[in-house]
Amino acid sequence: MTILTRPILEINLDNLIANYKLLQQIAPKAEAAAVVKDDAYGIGAVLVAQTLYEQAKCRCFFVAHGVEGAKIRKVVPDARIFVLQGIGEDSLEDFVSARLIPVISSPQMFEFWKQHRISGIKPAIQIETGLNRLGFREADLTQMSKEDLYEFSVVLSHLACADEKDHFMNQHQLDMFVYLKDTYFPKSEATLSASDGTFLGQDYQFDIVRLGAAMYGINTAPYRENQMMPVVKVQAPVLEIASLPKGEFVGYSATYRATSNRKIAIVSIGYGDGIPRSLSNTGKVFFNMCDKLHEARILGRISMDNIICDVTDIDNLQTGDMADIISEYYTLDDIARDAQTISYEVLSRLGKNPRYLRKIKYPENSGNF
Amino acid sequence: MTILTRPILEINLDNLIANYKLLQQIAPKAEAAAVVKDDAYGIGAVLVAQTLYEQAKCRCFFVAHGVEGAKIRKVVPDARIFVLQGIGEDSLEDFVSARLIPVISSPQMFEFWKQHRISGIKPAIQIETGLNRLGFREADLTQMSKEDLYEFSVVLSHLACADEKDHFMNQHQLDMFVYLKDTYFPKSEATLSASDGTFLGQDYQFDIVRLGAAMYGINTAPYRENQMMPVVKVQAPVLEIASLPKGEFVGYSATYRATSNRKIAIVSIGYGDGIPRSLSNTGKVFFNMCDKLHEARILGRISMDNIICDVTDIDNLQTGDMADIISEYYTLDDIARDAQTISYEVLSRLGKNPRYLRKIKYPENSGNF
Repeated sequence: MTILTRPILEINLDNLIANYKLLQQIAPKAEAAAVVKDDAYGIGAVLVAQTLYEQAKCRCFFVAHGVEGAKIRKVVPDARIFVLQGIGEDSLEDFVSARLIPVISSPQMFEFWKQHRISGIKPAIQIETGLNRLGFREADLTQMSKEDLYEFSVVLSHLACADEKDHFMNQHQLDMFVYLKDTYFPKSEATLSASDGTFLGQDYQFDIVRLGAAMYGINTAPYRENQMMPVVKVQAPVLEIASLPKGEFVGYSATYRATSNRKIAIVSIGYGDGIPRSLSNTGKVFFNMCDKLHEARILGRISMDNIICDVTDIDNLQTGDMADIISEYYTLDDIARDAQTISYEVLSRLGKNPRYLRKIKYPENSGNF
Repeated sequence: MTILTRPILEINLDNLIANYKLLQQIAPKAEAAAVVKDDAYGIGAVLVAQTLYEQAKCRCFFVAHGVEGAKIRKVVPDARIFVLQGIGEDSLEDFVSARLIPVISSPQMFEFWKQHRISGIKPAIQIETGLNRLGFREADLTQMSKEDLYEFSVVLSHLACADEKDHFMNQHQLDMFVYLKDTYFPKSEATLSASDGTFLGQDYQFDIVRLGAAMYGINTAPYRENQMMPVVKVQAPVLEIASLPKGEFVGYSATYRATSNRKIAIVSIGYGDGIPRSLSNTGKVFFNMCDKLHEARILGRISMDNIICDVTDIDNLQTGDMADIISEYYTLDDIARDAQTISYEVLSRLGKNPRYLRKIKYPENSGNF
């Protein structure tokens, strides 16, 4: 009899490196940049950046905020670090101290840049091609001098629907990007695609591809089978096994009622650990016992610290046995589908939780850094 | 013209203390314990525990995991710290070093405790009264010796439906709790209620009330107006303002299409900062300009770092202006309703994000700790 209480978050850096290298092969002519914003989607930006820098020669990184760039600088000393949300008064210091490259996304931000230029740094520019998010519109570009336009080392845009191979927006945005780039930034490096766009083929890859979600194991090309290896795995121990008599309720607001006698397991993980509460009464967990795989559906509402699941048909289950919460049987993509969101949001929530027992699988030759 | 890029999370410790004291008044005969599990619902367990210990004489805390208890021990040196998920092999060290009190929830865990008793610590016991989550069932209690039963200093259970004043489960669980307590633990302290149960009245308050959500500003008694003060506020800067011509799409998967010419603002916050992606196309943000309040609805999908909103009718809006994301106009409870979840989950996600600029409003006499 084992008693365990803590959920476990396992991070496989070998698979991270393998995914990065596979994506490099898919875009052989582009520089493979690693997107480590949002603390590397929760996995840990310093850990991911250092791994890719030391083990895969990655020399180009993207973050969202200056503060995120400053955090990784020491582990990627001579890499380019681009900051997607750009530069402002609340991040200027980080840009100076960590030699970050702002992605300038509006004429106003460009004015700010001109007042605070950092010597030796050539900024990137974001242009709008259809997402209607950040970026210069063509009307803005026509207002700029040749000298202004020459200031940008890199021109960047972002696709809206690249996870759908045949979406009309892809070609539309590609055409717009090529036109704006050729017209206004003929000498700049160009980058259009994140992971999903990279899979659309060489036309979309340009000089730099920005690899995030796929590198972390998410299927960003859902029209075909996932080629990526899983980078995170989540498990949690069974804290208790109990009988649930017919007619009794389970969990908050009594949303599940047993229509027959059941056996339930209380698993020590909840939405406090980033498991979407929208999996209540719809998600499942798995038990891999003696090489036999058992599915146990989630009963009632997920609470902050616990999930209750139906283990009526699983013999020999004991406290201390580990439930597979995110695994090869129930991937980030499966969870996202059942939770009615996207894998990116699921992943982003997981790694930020300090109470996980973190197990990191380091590459063999790394000396654990 | 101001350029700002970072979202801001403001934590008001004065309001936290005021909420704690108000709840104390609502349960004048019970000890008011503070629930600081899940890193104090993301607000920061060390910060909250220290504040309540030093400024409000709180001497009793609840966490979920041993590792959480160990983190706060140094700031609450002589307080009781109860651990709701109990004790196991993976947390034993934390219990010993930080003198934590396990809440034992199964006969198996009690066996573990008997093998690893920590001198000077009297454990609590959790009993099941209808939630069908963790806890001893009566059948388990009948198997225990008098000596075993006397070992527990505190008997604990948890209500399933306490946010609904007239739910039949409340009285049912109360009766069951009183019966089990009187029969098996006549000399132990008793605790049944979290914030929501505390509002059900003195019958539900017993010796200890466990204050979490309400103390953090959530309305746990939604059948009446919220009496709690807000503890968190979230703001994010407008990064860019742009025209959205009729017919154009917004955001990933092009889920919003403009039926007339609109003006949009791109606000520098997203689901990476814990804003639920399920607010896409349904939530809103607010702008408080010259004391006039403007509502701006969210257009298209929320992305990891940005929200796009409709500001067509807001004159004079500029980059660098702050959008109120969570505020008195659009509370945690409002967000939860629009995101189809509960305030607890919304709050729990916010504070874990390291890229927020955190602004903490310390009590005046605290010397900022």
